[in-house]
Amino acid sequence: MADTALFPPEQLFDFSVRVFRHFGVPEEDARTAATVLQSADLRGIDSHGVARLHSYFDMLTLGRIDPNAKVTIVRESPSTATVDGGNGLGLVVGPKANAIAMEKALAAGSGWVSVRNTNHFGIAGYYVLQALERDLIGWAMTNTTKLVAPLWGAERMLGTNPIAIAFPGREEPAIVIDMATTAAAYGKIEIARRAGKPIPTGWAIDRAGATTTDPNAMIDGGAMLPLGSDRDRGGHKGYGLAVMVDVLSAVLSGANWGPFVPPFALRQEIPTRSVGKGIGHFFGALRIDAFIDTDEFKRQIDELVRILRKTRPAPGTSGPLIPGDPERQAEAVRRRDGIPVVAAVVDELRDISRQTGIPL
Amino acid sequence: MADTALFPPEQLFDFSVRVFRHFGVPEEDARTAATVLQSADLRGIDSHGVARLHSYFDMLTLGRIDPNAKVTIVRESPSTATVDGGNGLGLVVGPKANAIAMEKALAAGSGWVSVRNTNHFGIAGYYVLQALERDLIGWAMTNTTKLVAPLWGAERMLGTNPIAIAFPGREEPAIVIDMATTAAAYGKIEIARRAGKPIPTGWAIDRAGATTTDPNAMIDGGAMLPLGSDRDRGGHKGYGLAVMVDVLSAVLSGANWGPFVPPFALRQEIPTRSVGKGIGHFFGALRIDAFIDTDEFKRQIDELVRILRKTRPAPGTSGPLIPGDPERQAEAVRRRDGIPVVAAVVDELRDISRQTGIPL
Repeated sequence: MADTALFPPEQLFDFSVRVFRHFGVPEEDARTAATVLQSADLRGIDSHGVARLHSYFDMLTLGRIDPNAKVTIVRESPSTATVDGGNGLGLVVGPKANAIAMEKALAAGSGWVSVRNTNHFGIAGYYVLQALERDLIGWAMTNTTKLVAPLWGAERMLGTNPIAIAFPGREEPAIVIDMATTAAAYGKIEIARRAGKPIPTGWAIDRAGATTTDPNAMIDGGAMLPLGSDRDRGGHKGYGLAVMVDVLSAVLSGANWGPFVPPFALRQEIPTRSVGKGIGHFFGALRIDAFIDTDEFKRQIDELVRILRKTRPAPGTSGPLIPGDPERQAEAVRRRDGIPVVAAVVDELRDISRQTGIPL
Repeated sequence: MADTALFPPEQLFDFSVRVFRHFGVPEEDARTAATVLQSADLRGIDSHGVARLHSYFDMLTLGRIDPNAKVTIVRESPSTATVDGGNGLGLVVGPKANAIAMEKALAAGSGWVSVRNTNHFGIAGYYVLQALERDLIGWAMTNTTKLVAPLWGAERMLGTNPIAIAFPGREEPAIVIDMATTAAAYGKIEIARRAGKPIPTGWAIDRAGATTTDPNAMIDGGAMLPLGSDRDRGGHKGYGLAVMVDVLSAVLSGANWGPFVPPFALRQEIPTRSVGKGIGHFFGALRIDAFIDTDEFKRQIDELVRILRKTRPAPGTSGPLIPGDPERQAEAVRRRDGIPVVAAVVDELRDISRQTGIPL
């Protein structure tokens, strides 16, 4: 792409660490936060990497996020915990809460942590990859600022509420599912707007609630559609999944849910009410060897991956991918060639550099 | 509908119990199995109620299901268990395994049970309703005989692999999500075939892997599409969810997965290989008060339900439903008026009656 610059991953990582340190985020937390952002950039989820650094910068500048937040367990059982993130960075609260889920799993077979009073946590995929390294099946969800209409609704009521889960293989790479519960990613609608191109049907509605192919009509007061898009094709299912994520992340922890989730970026409107604290996450971990020998599990995952790859391809395709393939391929390229950052984001990073004196 | 007969729920229940008893299923198990079937008929999931009794009848007649199966725990931890269903009726194994998940949850905060060597378990929704009664958040999944193509595949490799989860309210009815991970239900494709009508795009492909609106083209060697339908609208996400259900239900327990799941009905082909025992289920239960006061949780669910109902309606709709509304409405009508059974299913029940001497 003409309007992107390539950055070595380490350079963006170091810059991010110094930006977080600038606000007094402790060294270890700053490194954790930068690691989560970097994992998005490496895996090709450009919308969730340094492209978001300016939003975190804004929130920290305005004092809307506590750089020194303490993460506390407010209730727990052998296999569960409710965590209060102290209004810290989601990029720091998330990894700490996820670690509690993983510790519980090692002791009790499974661990489940619902988190309140936190902020946006980066890509859900990061957390389940952490679990993979410990032979755990990791789960991660979070609610997010409203962008999505419930099926048959004409306004934004729910977030894009992603779900991630991963299963380790032995010789084959892991199956890594990381998906928003929407028909398409918001980033793709923004890209279409910039390019002046229409979006496919099934992605969005306009402010009157009618189906639209105009990206502006969605962005300017319309809404995204849940996975499944319409009633015929199962839009009630994507809507149901978004509600599930909202309840597990926010109702179960005491965070804000639905249209009351606080904004992540300055341009987003402030909700009319608060029904809890901050946003919510939900983490889970299942110890594989609590169910079956880990080696046997991984051998079967290898076999499943191979069988799925051997599926007869649909016309015009090279056949099914394994969930996680595109991200793994992006990471291989980007570790070698660097991370492409679009000009608009480079400008944002330069602005942070100017305001903080941290060299880019 | 002209070609349906109304039956009192008790009559179908008693008939089902006697059919199971005919094969030596113990009294209590027969009543459990009939209860699960009845819950499908009451909730309007006609494809999973007495419409399936003839398939269970066939399988029991052929000795492919053990009417006296013992359900055993083969591995466990404080919050997890792996269960072997002894090749019993899924309608009996499922409730027993679900009960283990619920017991674990009461003791350890959560309970997770993966089940192998079992058979089709009815509607996933039944199990999560059981959990609701105990103030637990219930989860249920199962893999099923192959019908669905992975995105970009041209052949059946996965089942319709449903996911259910439910959240109790206080004054408002519970949120009950129960969804196949496909764009549409197989039953709707059969109905279109009988009516000689086309199906919407996004539901199915033909045997060459091309999109089709001809129900015959799907049924005769084609495949269903995952939720999301195509790449543009997130078909990779429905495919990912189907894989998730398969792994949790079958790889984790040691059951057959993907294209190797054994057939449920006589007309279905026998897989070329076996990679485990029977089919697989996955049950979960989270104790609400391990996270937050149950009353506070239910109050927030009430509020969420009310807020979602107040969403501005999309044009031509009455506004969003709450997941579980259609099933709850069906149940109210059917408890009052009886269960409508289509002529073809009445014929099947009569056939069972003729072969067993059990009066319908």
